[in-house]
Order: sequence, then structure tokens, then C-alpha cells
Amino acid sequence: MQKAVVLLSGGLDSTTTLAIAQQEGYEACAMSFDYGQRHKSELDAPRRIARAFNIRQHIIPSIDLRAFGGSALTSELDVPKGRSLDEMAKDIPVTYVPARNTIFLSFALAWAEMLGAYDIFIGVNALDYSGYPDCRPEYIAAFEYMARLATKAGVEGRQQIKIHTPLVALTKGEIIRRGLDLGVDYSVTSTCYDPSAVGEACGKCDACLLRLKGFAENNISDPAPYQLSGIPV
Amino acid sequence: MQKAVVLLSGGLDSTTTLAIAQQEGYEACAMSFDYGQRHKSELDAPRRIARAFNIRQHIIPSIDLRAFGGSALTSELDVPKGRSLDEMAKDIPVTYVPARNTIFLSFALAWAEMLGAYDIFIGVNALDYSGYPDCRPEYIAAFEYMARLATKAGVEGRQQIKIHTPLVALTKGEIIRRGLDLGVDYSVTSTCYDPSAVGEACGKCDACLLRLKGFAENNISDPAPYQLSGIPV
Repeated sequence: MQKAVVLLSGGLDSTTTLAIAQQEGYEACAMSFDYGQRHKSELDAPRRIARAFNIRQHIIPSIDLRAFGGSALTSELDVPKGRSLDEMAKDIPVTYVPARNTIFLSFALAWAEMLGAYDIFIGVNALDYSGYPDCRPEYIAAFEYMARLATKAGVEGRQQIKIHTPLVALTKGEIIRRGLDLGVDYSVTSTCYDPSAVGEACGKCDACLLRLKGFAENNISDPAPYQLSGIPV
Repeated sequence: MQKAVVLLSGGLDSTTTLAIAQQEGYEACAMSFDYGQRHKSELDAPRRIARAFNIRQHIIPSIDLRAFGGSALTSELDVPKGRSLDEMAKDIPVTYVPARNTIFLSFALAWAEMLGAYDIFIGVNALDYSGYPDCRPEYIAAFEYMARLATKAGVEGRQQIKIHTPLVALTKGEIIRRGLDLGVDYSVTSTCYDPSAVGEACGKCDACLLRLKGFAENNISDPAPYQLSGIPV
């Protein structure tokens, strides 16, 4: 069984991506990151999901993004709440972590090379994204090209690295539909940019609003836990 | 004064690169990595050099490369000694760390974006390299292209990231000549793959042999400390 590295944040997108990688016949090796998230509970979700998907190899390297400061996900800036989709699309949000996907994919590339794997899955999405430059297909293609030049396999003319982005052209509603078809239990996923200490979603940040829109498009309610003040209507 | 991020391992190449960045008029911000080097003394060299060059911002993020295993620089494999230049050129050595330059450049990219810098200096060398895929000019060009798509500045059409590789086409002898012309004190640099606990070079690993060849080409002796058994002839 060919191994693939799957980047697993524990959110809806990465969990659906993991289900797709397994359905395509790969032995999924999951990689999450401890990058100084504001709540340690944010690492519970990927651990739960790795167990639920019977992942044999799940590593969580620590990376020191906090040393750089400058993003709401790793420092004390306020996470914006209650924005419209138009507002989200307008600019790169304060929740943007500089070069985050580049760093994550670089670690995935290193691990793939160690595992003898040539496939990396990442749940980026260019439709319902929220202005992140490093979620666009042209960025992913450029990373893939660079990765093929960076590695032993590339130099020696063996099999080439492939970056799989199965969600890139799907709406949030379509992603959820796809995951439900594959039997994903979304109650264990965690998407919120500003969860409570016990991991309940706020229901009002960009990520929660996009997620709730996706469930609404499927006419079902989100099974994940929300804070009282953020209970979806 | 425009800031530039300079990757500073503390070796001969990165120190010369730092001198060149300053000479070109940049405020050099130095970035080193604690990636589980076998001896903590390996981080003394970049600290000494940053002091010697009056660097105002020097950060040393920890990265968890050791979790991946598989390289002589981070695990217990034997570092090869006494190889000829032909043997070094023949294959990618066991000292290769998977995707190392990709990870280092990704962190540099993140820090550059935080600093409002658009210039990254890395002392890669494609002539006297030793078979590393991620030291070749085509790899660096691909990283630069990817970086321009990864960042806010790229998306917003502002200034573009540039990866500077001033040593890429120089022999080790030419690098040392260039550094000496710029007043670099090479006694504080540390190149060896297998130094003693107090930082003395072994004189026999690929890195030491290339370095010693470079000093020999300039008809001068290396001012750095060597172990008794590795004293250059």
C-alpha cells in the first residue's frame, strides 16, 4: 500500500481530505502541527480524528511560528466576528499566518521523503477560501514544481512528488456532501478560529460562518459543539 | 535601510553571505535554527558571528527535524570521513537532511513577511556543493517563484520576494577570497559535520575537506580550531 502524507489540522476540510486519501487507496500518514495554538485543545481534534480513521503514523512536530508574532491565530489580536462573505472575500484577514502553508508543506515534503512517499494531500480550497494567497491552485502548482527539484527522487529521476488538493474547486457545501458520502463524522472536527478552552466553536468567526453555510446548503445541522452564544440558528 | 533575512548556520558560506548582504547595504536580520544538532555548541557559532557583525535581530526558532530521523546531522549515523572530491560528487551523502533548505527558506519567508522585507540571502553553492539537490540554482529559482505566489505582497502586486545566492557560482577558494576582502574573521566560523563537544572541527568530513581545500587555494591556513587528530597539514 503506497503511503501518502496528509496534512491534518482537525478541521472539516483536512478531515474530508483524509477520507478521500484513504478512499483513493493510500495508507494515510497524518501530520499535524503544534505551532503555539492559543488553546491546547486545538490539538485534541486531530488526535481524535487520527484514531477514528485508524491512522498508524500520526506525527505532531512543534514549530515555532509564535516567535514571529503577527497573526491572530498565534498572538493576541482579535479574531473578526460576524463578517459577511463579501467582507471575507475582500482582503487577506488578520488570521493569516505568514507562509503557513509553505512551512506546513515543507515539513510534509521532508516526512514524505523519509517515508518513501511521493504523495501529499492538503485540504486547501480556492472557492470558499478567505483570501489566503497560499490556498490558490497556482501556488500549489509552484510548490509542487519546487518540491520536485528539492528532493533526492527528483534529482535521481525517480517518482515525482505530487501535491493533491481534492477540495480545491469545491464549495463548502460540496465538501461536506463529499465527506458525508464517505462516512465522515463531522462531530469530531474543529474549524473555529476562536474556540473556547474546551473546544466549542464560537459560531461567528469567518471559519465558523463558512462551515455553517456549508451545512445549511446540505439542509443539515452541524453536529460539532458550539458555545451557547454561538449556537447556529 | 531595507531589511533582509540572512540564513546563518555559522559556517564559512553563510558567514560570507552575511558579509555580502551588509556590503550591499541591507540591514541583515539573521536567522539560525535549533534543529536538534548533535552538539549544542553548534549554535555558539551563529551567536558569536551575529555579535561580530552587530546584528540587531537574530532569531533561532526550534524546529523538530529530529522527529523525522534519517540523517547523520540529526541522528546517530556515522559521518563519512576522508572521502575524495570524486566520491563526494558521486551521490547525495548520508548527511543530507530531507527538504532542509525548503524548510529553512520557508521560515525565512515567514519572517521576511513579518519584517516587511523582500530579500532573503542563503549561502548555497552549486560548484563545491556535495550533491545536495536543494543547493542548485534551478531549485532556488523555483522556490523564489513559489514564494512570490505564497505571500500577501505577491497577491497584492507589491514588491516581490527575491532569494539572493551570492555564492552559488563560486568555488570554496573564491568564497574565502571574497570574505577575506570583506574583512570576515573565519576563526569564529564552524563548518564541520562532526565537531567535538567544544566545537573543534574534525578535519576529515566532507565539509572540513572542502573548507581546507578552499584555504589551501588561497595559500593561507584555516584560523578555526581543529581537533588534534584532524590538524590540517
